[in-house]
Amino acid sequence: MAADNFAIGATATDGGAASEVIEAEGHLIDSQILNNVFDTVVKRNASFDVLKFSIGRSNDEPSRISMRISAPSESELTEVLEELVSLGCRVADTHDAVLREAEQDGCVPDDFYSTTNHRTMVRHKRKWMEVSHQRMDAVIVIEDGAATCRKLRNVKKGDRVVCGVSGIRVIPEFVDRDRQGFAFMTNEISSERRVEVGVSRIASMMREAKDAGGKIAVVAGPVVVHTGGSVHFQELIRSGYVNVLLAGNALAVHDVEQALFGTSLGVDLDTGRAIEGGHRNHMRAINTICRAGGLRQAVEQEVLTSGVMYECINHGVDYVLAGSIRDDGPLPDTIMDLVAAQDRYAEALEGVRLVLALSTMLHGIGVGNMLPSSVKMVCVDINPAVVTKLADRGSSQTLGVVTDVGLFLHRLAQRLRA
Amino acid sequence: MAADNFAIGATATDGGAASEVIEAEGHLIDSQILNNVFDTVVKRNASFDVLKFSIGRSNDEPSRISMRISAPSESELTEVLEELVSLGCRVADTHDAVLREAEQDGCVPDDFYSTTNHRTMVRHKRKWMEVSHQRMDAVIVIEDGAATCRKLRNVKKGDRVVCGVSGIRVIPEFVDRDRQGFAFMTNEISSERRVEVGVSRIASMMREAKDAGGKIAVVAGPVVVHTGGSVHFQELIRSGYVNVLLAGNALAVHDVEQALFGTSLGVDLDTGRAIEGGHRNHMRAINTICRAGGLRQAVEQEVLTSGVMYECINHGVDYVLAGSIRDDGPLPDTIMDLVAAQDRYAEALEGVRLVLALSTMLHGIGVGNMLPSSVKMVCVDINPAVVTKLADRGSSQTLGVVTDVGLFLHRLAQRLRA
Amino acid sequence: MAADNFAIGATATDGGAASEVIEAEGHLIDSQILNNVFDTVVKRNASFDVLKFSIGRSNDEPSRISMRISAPSESELTEVLEELVSLGCRVADTHDAVLREAEQDGCVPDDFYSTTNHRTMVRHKRKWMEVSHQRMDAVIVIEDGAATCRKLRNVKKGDRVVCGVSGIRVIPEFVDRDRQGFAFMTNEISSERRVEVGVSRIASMMREAKDAGGKIAVVAGPVVVHTGGSVHFQELIRSGYVNVLLAGNALAVHDVEQALFGTSLGVDLDTGRAIEGGHRNHMRAINTICRAGGLRQAVEQEVLTSGVMYECINHGVDYVLAGSIRDDGPLPDTIMDLVAAQDRYAEALEGVRLVLALSTMLHGIGVGNMLPSSVKMVCVDINPAVVTKLADRGSSQTLGVVTDVGLFLHRLAQRLRA
Amino acid sequence: MAADNFAIGATATDGGAASEVIEAEGHLIDSQILNNVFDTVVKRNASFDVLKFSIGRSNDEPSRISMRISAPSESELTEVLEELVSLGCRVADTHDAVLREAEQDGCVPDDFYSTTNHRTMVRHKRKWMEVSHQRMDAVIVIEDGAATCRKLRNVKKGDRVVCGVSGIRVIPEFVDRDRQGFAFMTNEISSERRVEVGVSRIASMMREAKDAGGKIAVVAGPVVVHTGGSVHFQELIRSGYVNVLLAGNALAVHDVEQALFGTSLGVDLDTGRAIEGGHRNHMRAINTICRAGGLRQAVEQEVLTSGVMYECINHGVDYVLAGSIRDDGPLPDTIMDLVAAQDRYAEALEGVRLVLALSTMLHGIGVGNMLPSSVKMVCVDINPAVVTKLADRGSSQTLGVVTDVGLFLHRLAQRLRA
Repeated sequence: MAADNFAIGATATDGGAASEVIEAEGHLIDSQILNNVFDTVVKRNASFDVLKFSIGRSNDEPSRISMRISAPSESELTEVLEELVSLGCRVADTHDAVLREAEQDGCVPDDFYSTTNHRTMVRHKRKWMEVSHQRMDAVIVIEDGAATCRKLRNVKKGDRVVCGVSGIRVIPEFVDRDRQGFAFMTNEISSERRVEVGVSRIASMMREAKDAGGKIAVVAGPVVVHTGGSVHFQELIRSGYVNVLLAGNALAVHDVEQALFGTSLGVDLDTGRAIEGGHRNHMRAINTICRAGGLRQAVEQEVLTSGVMYECINHGVDYVLAGSIRDDGPLPDTIMDLVAAQDRYAEALEGVRLVLALSTMLHGIGVGNMLPSSVKMVCVDINPAVVTKLADRGSSQTLGVVTDVGLFLHRLAQRLRA
Repeated sequence: MAADNFAIGATATDGGAASEVIEAEGHLIDSQILNNVFDTVVKRNASFDVLKFSIGRSNDEPSRISMRISAPSESELTEVLEELVSLGCRVADTHDAVLREAEQDGCVPDDFYSTTNHRTMVRHKRKWMEVSHQRMDAVIVIEDGAATCRKLRNVKKGDRVVCGVSGIRVIPEFVDRDRQGFAFMTNEISSERRVEVGVSRIASMMREAKDAGGKIAVVAGPVVVHTGGSVHFQELIRSGYVNVLLAGNALAVHDVEQALFGTSLGVDLDTGRAIEGGHRNHMRAINTICRAGGLRQAVEQEVLTSGVMYECINHGVDYVLAGSIRDDGPLPDTIMDLVAAQDRYAEALEGVRLVLALSTMLHGIGVGNMLPSSVKMVCVDINPAVVTKLADRGSSQTLGVVTDVGLFLHRLAQRLRA
Repeated sequence: MAADNFAIGATATDGGAASEVIEAEGHLIDSQILNNVFDTVVKRNASFDVLKFSIGRSNDEPSRISMRISAPSESELTEVLEELVSLGCRVADTHDAVLREAEQDGCVPDDFYSTTNHRTMVRHKRKWMEVSHQRMDAVIVIEDGAATCRKLRNVKKGDRVVCGVSGIRVIPEFVDRDRQGFAFMTNEISSERRVEVGVSRIASMMREAKDAGGKIAVVAGPVVVHTGGSVHFQELIRSGYVNVLLAGNALAVHDVEQALFGTSLGVDLDTGRAIEGGHRNHMRAINTICRAGGLRQAVEQEVLTSGVMYECINHGVDYVLAGSIRDDGPLPDTIMDLVAAQDRYAEALEGVRLVLALSTMLHGIGVGNMLPSSVKMVCVDINPAVVTKLADRGSSQTLGVVTDVGLFLHRLAQRLRA
Repeated sequence: MAADNFAIGATATDGGAASEVIEAEGHLIDSQILNNVFDTVVKRNASFDVLKFSIGRSNDEPSRISMRISAPSESELTEVLEELVSLGCRVADTHDAVLREAEQDGCVPDDFYSTTNHRTMVRHKRKWMEVSHQRMDAVIVIEDGAATCRKLRNVKKGDRVVCGVSGIRVIPEFVDRDRQGFAFMTNEISSERRVEVGVSRIASMMREAKDAGGKIAVVAGPVVVHTGGSVHFQELIRSGYVNVLLAGNALAVHDVEQALFGTSLGVDLDTGRAIEGGHRNHMRAINTICRAGGLRQAVEQEVLTSGVMYECINHGVDYVLAGSIRDDGPLPDTIMDLVAAQDRYAEALEGVRLVLALSTMLHGIGVGNMLPSSVKMVCVDINPAVVTKLADRGSSQTLGVVTDVGLFLHRLAQRLRA
């Protein structure tokens, strides 16, 4: 039972030329929702008047609030409401979501509702229904009585798109205190932490995901190879802890270079000696795979007999290599059409419950953008700014670890073996 | 009027073998106090039961809470309460603070109360009184009927020291939403921000501090000189925006080297050319000041006729140079006894309302440790990790700016001139 | 006249089962070529025997060396020679380069010669001829009596490809001491430098390039917009200092967002206030440009009336936007086929004499890979690791500046105005 | 036999109003001495004329050069010569070093010779003698027929100090190609390297130093404790790999806090949970050691029974804790008089052949300044800028490793155990 709090006869604050009553419930204080709501209102030069509030008396009970938001004009009110809805408030009125038709392919009405990555409900024909394929920065289309997230570029002329803020309800991922262990490091990203604590937590999450039948995806940059993490990463693959590998051309090329020549960008991984003009091995690796016709063919022809890509192919890991402007080659496997690459990434991420992003800001951000907030993401990088940036996007529940990725993988493989 | 919330007949949760009622009031949600209180309780395996809660209906009204905290044992309860008191809660009982005598110089009873940097009240002889010389990591001594913060090393045998958590009330600095402008960047330290916004905010803070008769202290590292910020810093001094300069030996040596030879660690500041063995100019600068007998004497003898130290001496800026293990020389002005240096720093900081820490983690942390939370601190560094670390210490209200300090000073001087 | 040095009757060192005489000339000591040659030989477990050496007596005179290289086996000798050739040595024999036919499209013989970015001569039919379209990591194809660099993916079955090391001569870009001003900061990348010195040097380089009729390309990341550098960058465009803009989708989207809404990723650039859910403006910017049909159409329709892209379009700057896996949208102008994007980048870089890479590792590396070493490149980033990485690739003469890119552009525009 | 090179009748270049002949010999090309000499001359607007040059024909043979340096004026010539002497050239004349008396305590004549950290010979009474206690930024005093390095502050009135550049010969540490393994990573400090290679190299160096009876010093920051490296560091101490520990107050305080309470700055090292107000444990640790009278007494009284300081005391490691402006407490063991602390550091470093600097820029620079160049130094930090800075000081042969120090110590202990 929550301790209730009633305020009778509340009216709009004088200053407000336009106002609307909003409601929210849940772990409003724990999840900092209430704090963010108040901040947003004040920052926007609007004001609030709390009508009802009941606080959860213990950690398990939800809180509830009802408040009137007032702003100097209708348009300013709309802007505040848009932000509050994305935080988890809903307009207290009882209308359906407004639908408007897309005027042309890839283009929607100006007041379209832009999605967050949180679970979202839409009210249509007096019924609340959940939006499928939730992801951020999409629009919601109602089609055949169902609501679904659609990327702007996939919208077709005539699609009925949700606009405005009525009839929309966002359900922010609840940061459970029982999962404090996960959350604890999120806010403070620092290299001055004991990595073993993070490793042990991540190992548990991987075991849980695996035991529950959920998929684990690894997004990896070439630094995994440069830092000697490859052999430990291969162990993770062989042990079944990697279901999906999302990477760029460079990871695969460096991996093949190491497998064929023992070097990575011309640096001998055993002695650390740099070879002048070491790019030659790099280009030879590409040439060799091109001759075979691709990575899979190179494995079949026994040209490629070790390494991360070899293990992926041997253990049925779904890998997608996305191209970039800096790519040499590329390998025949690398998808240079980025629309196709994004689609393949998104497809491979279906059913994934946990993502490890290892030393790759570019692909890490790309993947973060595609995930619903219920998927956990772990970001490992030696540069705290990269970890902060990945964690900052609010695109999912993120655990950041600032450390050497090679040594991290060594410890993680060790821990998972134990 | 706050919307009230009463819970009649609340009792301790079953699980708790020991419990205590605590109270708090103020901007509990805005300042994230309530959130932190809940987090702390759960993290510590304790539980809470909200007895009363009233929420501020608008941005100007305070909130109030009363809750019972329960823990498995007395000692665990004490630990939770210690944390909650430091967050701004007070034990609801009506006892005076417990006093115990220091058993020897520089040593206090084990259950001593360790201070925060927030304004603190102590209940003594049934009266609440404010603690003077507030700073963090000190103990509170009651002497001649007054309460004062004292560093452990200055405690004398027989001093009456506040112990436990009863009769103590911490008043966290309220992060006012009207001062959002100050607060806004605190949480997100990033190099991907427009520095002009920070510069403009800092310039306003400096003007306000100056107009209000408050002092401004600058804590500066030698990078101020290396990056060419010196000339702009000198302008700030001449314009009266610097009352106190806290630095190390290196800042003064590099400043003198530039004044005498035009180089900084042997790098010509006009052409950027590095001189092999450029340390010679560095050592010559020290030798020259040693010959004069010190910086002030060098100015009087017209040996030193420009630079940051010259301007400080000419404009009556109180400067303190603290020694370190890496110092060359040092200059006669540098205080190599660090106990004396800390005392001189603390003395110079009296009456200071605003501190600018420019490219110096060491001295910035040192100063941060000495300040009450009511003093604002601005940290500027090109390394985000340094800014995060300085801002993280919670030692004061901190605004962090990640940027090039030389260009920052250029823009700041320009803005203050306008 | 060089002081000459003859050694008569030199023979191979005993240990070497295979040996070859190589020659080099030029600024062997200044450019550290000789040092690198010796290092390479020893690192490779080979040995050298200097046959002739003449040192340049003054700064203007070249040095010349002839030395026998010995290695334990033919294959090891070949590997050493490959490295030495890439450093600027040539095999002293008098044979033509070896040509072999590509066995299939996109695939060459295993001993293919992999190019550097330095000017290269090939001996064909007893004549030395210069290779055109020089770039690194390509192969050399002889076609219609001319030698040209070709990317592996563009090689066709039957193309005659240069293999081995005979008949190849690399002419490393001479790091002239008169250009020390340019070179001075190359080796030591540090945030503790006076940026004004770099700004002044870069401004001179831009003026010289412009006066000489050479083109200037800017490679820019979205941080240029976030940090408030946009307005200064626009000034550079209007003043004719930018002929080519190479960027990604994000720069253009953030630029349009700022032009239409005054925010960048939802952060108000004037007040620094972050808007919760600020991605909405970002998506609206994309939607608006999609409706217009593209950036150029948006300018024509007067939908887009300011910003970097607006100025580019108005001033005839050739811009190329390359897609990436993290792109939202993308804008209709963004090339999502990365093979096409690389080709368009390379095309736009023809005739460019100076490249400024501003806060973009990805596109900076991409561009660096395409350039011959005679094109100067300036890299500006607040993260020293990015600057080091860009400068490290040896892909061109690089000047690295570690600073805030917003403030850098402010100072650069100021300096170019003066 | 070296291939010789004679130039008869060489004369000074026209432009030079003042000139001097200098000589150098040794691995002039390998060690980049010749390159640096040429650079210095040209940068200083002087010119050179090579009189004689003989190149080492193979890797084992030294090279020799004799050249005339000309500059526009005597004073400019002197400046160039000062730099060239510090690089390893000597003036070809046959005069003794010039001696002048110090005019007062702590102050020397303006043209004093400022030392490098390389082995140095001084010509006195027609005999070359080696300077003792070599370190950088000192002066050379001739006393009782011997030459010794003395810090400026220790110079007494009347001391005979070496001035000018005649009769001085610097012998730069030869970077042997057989020790390439050590040198290889020096120039390229990057987080994108395989740490195992560095670990294995460092382990060998430690074993060699120990076997040869040389001492190993560790300079350590508190991050060693925060990152969980403490337990591995303790293993190194127990195994006899640490003879000297140089640190600050913070390392010892955090170590004691962990030993007594299991936390480090309030963060539980096993669970990673941060305790609000965690500074309390920190202050309690200090209070406990103060009560005991110091670390050694705390060990004797069995108050302190584990940790780095405990192991140091138990295994006779010579530890020195130097104070700083940011210190809490300090512990009774911490030397707050920095002149005394520098002297104790220098004393403890006598006989040390290898220094490991772990996550401490401040103390690392302090130690680097005290070492002759023959002592090897290994710097480990997660921040590449710190490693670059420590390696850059040219104060010794430095191997930089960019990695997580906790994981590094784990791997190092593992490797030394094997």
